[in-house]
Amino acid sequence: MRMYDLISKKRNGGTLNKEEMTHLIEGYVKGEIPDYQMSAFLMAVYFQGMTKEETSIMTDLVARSGDVVDLSSIEGIKVDKHSTGGVGDKTTLIVGPLAAACGVKVAKMSGRGLGHTGGTVDKLEAIPGMRVSLDRNEFLEIVNKIGISVIGQSGNLTPADKKLYALRDVTATVESIPLIAVSIMGKKLAAGSDCILLDVKTGSGAFMNTVEDSLALAKEMVSIGESAGKKTVALITNMDIPLGNNIGNSLEVIEAVETLQNKGPEDLTKVCIELAANMLFLANKGDMESCYQQVKEALENGTALQKFAEMVEAQGGDKSVIYDVSKFEKAAFEKEVLSPVDGYITFMDTKECGVASCILGAGRETKEDDIDYSAGIMLVKKTGDKVQKGDVLAVLYSSCAEKIEPAAKHFLEAVRIEEQPAETQKLIYARVTADQTEWA
Amino acid sequence: MRMYDLISKKRNGGTLNKEEMTHLIEGYVKGEIPDYQMSAFLMAVYFQGMTKEETSIMTDLVARSGDVVDLSSIEGIKVDKHSTGGVGDKTTLIVGPLAAACGVKVAKMSGRGLGHTGGTVDKLEAIPGMRVSLDRNEFLEIVNKIGISVIGQSGNLTPADKKLYALRDVTATVESIPLIAVSIMGKKLAAGSDCILLDVKTGSGAFMNTVEDSLALAKEMVSIGESAGKKTVALITNMDIPLGNNIGNSLEVIEAVETLQNKGPEDLTKVCIELAANMLFLANKGDMESCYQQVKEALENGTALQKFAEMVEAQGGDKSVIYDVSKFEKAAFEKEVLSPVDGYITFMDTKECGVASCILGAGRETKEDDIDYSAGIMLVKKTGDKVQKGDVLAVLYSSCAEKIEPAAKHFLEAVRIEEQPAETQKLIYARVTADQTEWA
Repeated sequence: MRMYDLISKKRNGGTLNKEEMTHLIEGYVKGEIPDYQMSAFLMAVYFQGMTKEETSIMTDLVARSGDVVDLSSIEGIKVDKHSTGGVGDKTTLIVGPLAAACGVKVAKMSGRGLGHTGGTVDKLEAIPGMRVSLDRNEFLEIVNKIGISVIGQSGNLTPADKKLYALRDVTATVESIPLIAVSIMGKKLAAGSDCILLDVKTGSGAFMNTVEDSLALAKEMVSIGESAGKKTVALITNMDIPLGNNIGNSLEVIEAVETLQNKGPEDLTKVCIELAANMLFLANKGDMESCYQQVKEALENGTALQKFAEMVEAQGGDKSVIYDVSKFEKAAFEKEVLSPVDGYITFMDTKECGVASCILGAGRETKEDDIDYSAGIMLVKKTGDKVQKGDVLAVLYSSCAEKIEPAAKHFLEAVRIEEQPAETQKLIYARVTADQTEWA
Repeated sequence: MRMYDLISKKRNGGTLNKEEMTHLIEGYVKGEIPDYQMSAFLMAVYFQGMTKEETSIMTDLVARSGDVVDLSSIEGIKVDKHSTGGVGDKTTLIVGPLAAACGVKVAKMSGRGLGHTGGTVDKLEAIPGMRVSLDRNEFLEIVNKIGISVIGQSGNLTPADKKLYALRDVTATVESIPLIAVSIMGKKLAAGSDCILLDVKTGSGAFMNTVEDSLALAKEMVSIGESAGKKTVALITNMDIPLGNNIGNSLEVIEAVETLQNKGPEDLTKVCIELAANMLFLANKGDMESCYQQVKEALENGTALQKFAEMVEAQGGDKSVIYDVSKFEKAAFEKEVLSPVDGYITFMDTKECGVASCILGAGRETKEDDIDYSAGIMLVKKTGDKVQKGDVLAVLYSSCAEKIEPAAKHFLEAVRIEEQPAETQKLIYARVTADQTEWA
């Protein structure tokens, strides 16, 4: 089998069979297929796409290219949750404890932030003492004992994805829905849970800017998950506005705690209830109605907050900060950003809000950068709100005084204020299962 | 400027400006842009194409990536001729002397054969003593003295094309009309002639299988030539049947001599007159009618044959073989291929006829292979001919007995014999100039 023929086949709109796909992925991981042939293949996929079968086969090969986590020693149904990433997306910190409090097993490996999107692992590290690098046994023990553990990726997981993604990143072949689906689902299959809940973000702060693209990605991923024998559901949720009010690591943990106290922002609470209820549904905890009910109870009676505190303690963190968020270290510098005019906020370029938070020190430009955990943005007004000139739009925080002004400038440019209010957007667009797409 | 952005721009259907194209080509030649980014770019070009302006700019950069031949010391108008390659295409050996005999200056660098297509340089080397590697001064002197010299490519010509072509060859990005045009015209611009005649072959033995593709390529190349200030004309000629009757190096020289004696096959003679007349036209030797007349005279009065002999002598070859082709060394083995049935030859897969000749030893599979100059095929019957079972279709020649049978089998499979004759095809389809396409 010659790689040339595989490129040519895909270029001409053909379909690779299992043997050919195996040659492609295994040969690439082994270094037998050079980057320059793979990048030509990937660009051909960008234009010609892949069939559902090709995508499933490739995902399976990616998942099995390295370690596959064995969660069989955990009793009960393990449900994984994945977000395609956004700004202010602290849902894992809320949804994980909510689901665990209702008896779902959550053995989750999360990522770090890069660019304008934050990462759950960074947020957890804002909690003093919190360890996110556990060995496999400790991780399994904690999940078995308290129902939840969230750690960073460890071991040799999906080396094929790492190599492919690094190549796509420099050859303008990232933006291909089947390739994005393969990359995400390869990691999810390797992570070993029984069921998968996908939160596909859509809008100006998301990887997918349109509902159409998000829906296509959601369908592709659900199809892959189901083909691999994992019950999979995807929600398409709004990321055309930051989720909740806080952006930045400590700030997001604080907001997660407030939400678990049932005192969080309405949008964030609503999305978290939806996500958690779907995790319960995947774990066979009843029909959707009953799942909503269980989740709301866990929110109201404090068991979810308690579950979060248990996890923090089990992973070495100081759980007292969870019960008293004023203990989080404050940023040395802060500044209020004021509205320059009267009007309505009609749009917040959410990616640029994320970039402003990065400028403050909350994120990384490169993998090697350090994070300022106290840095970030607290939004006081959001899209849809009426504002008057001089009203506080947001408060910016940073440990570094000279970062404040450029971030304020960047933030203000991301906010559009007009005379007439814009149409309200949906918070949740659709729910995609193996059988159907239900529009909200 | 980042290569990533150039790939992304082309992928999205954008147009690279001169500065961007310069970064692309110069960066690639210098090794600053890696192969894996260039191959992704080339695949994007395969799908999105390039504008005429992009193609012209890229060609100019390719032409100037290495030496540009300075032919200014040759008096008169220098006309180059290029064929996109075919089977039995010995036109340069005939057209060059014809044009030179009529006062056109022909300072031509030709290629070697690879795969099913032969190369002029290999054919010339079938003449005992013939030198095709001359230094620049000797080459210029010969053209100035006798009007023609044909040599192999020398010096550091178009290194950008060499590097790009090698990459395209292994990444399934050869089959892109703008990239083919850039490759051919880059070499032609670097070769330094004032005018360029292009012979774009079409059909089963050609690089372009359809008249439509050949026309697109012809137009692209004429546009590039004219943009670079070189008068350029392209003819689209038939390569759905081998040109003339002989395939193989010595055999083709013999047929070229016969054609220069005005005793050659009708199809070959006709194509050569057309090509030579167009070279005269490009060199301002009169209107087309007058150019045809001059060429026919040079054919009839023997001056073209004499010009060929002069060139052979000037380049160290034994010119006596030109006046007595029986002096060419004969192949040790020969075999007649007989028709297995009665009927009409309706199709000869011309590429496969070339492959059969290769099997006999006339061509190379890889650049390192040696050539058997006496090997080849003499066609006795061609497409359109009526044949009876047992008629000789062709005679095969080789220095190696065991190559005959597989070649005979391959050849017979390439010939289709049916009860009814097929429609006659045109020999010359069209003439493309800067202003118009004239259909024959």
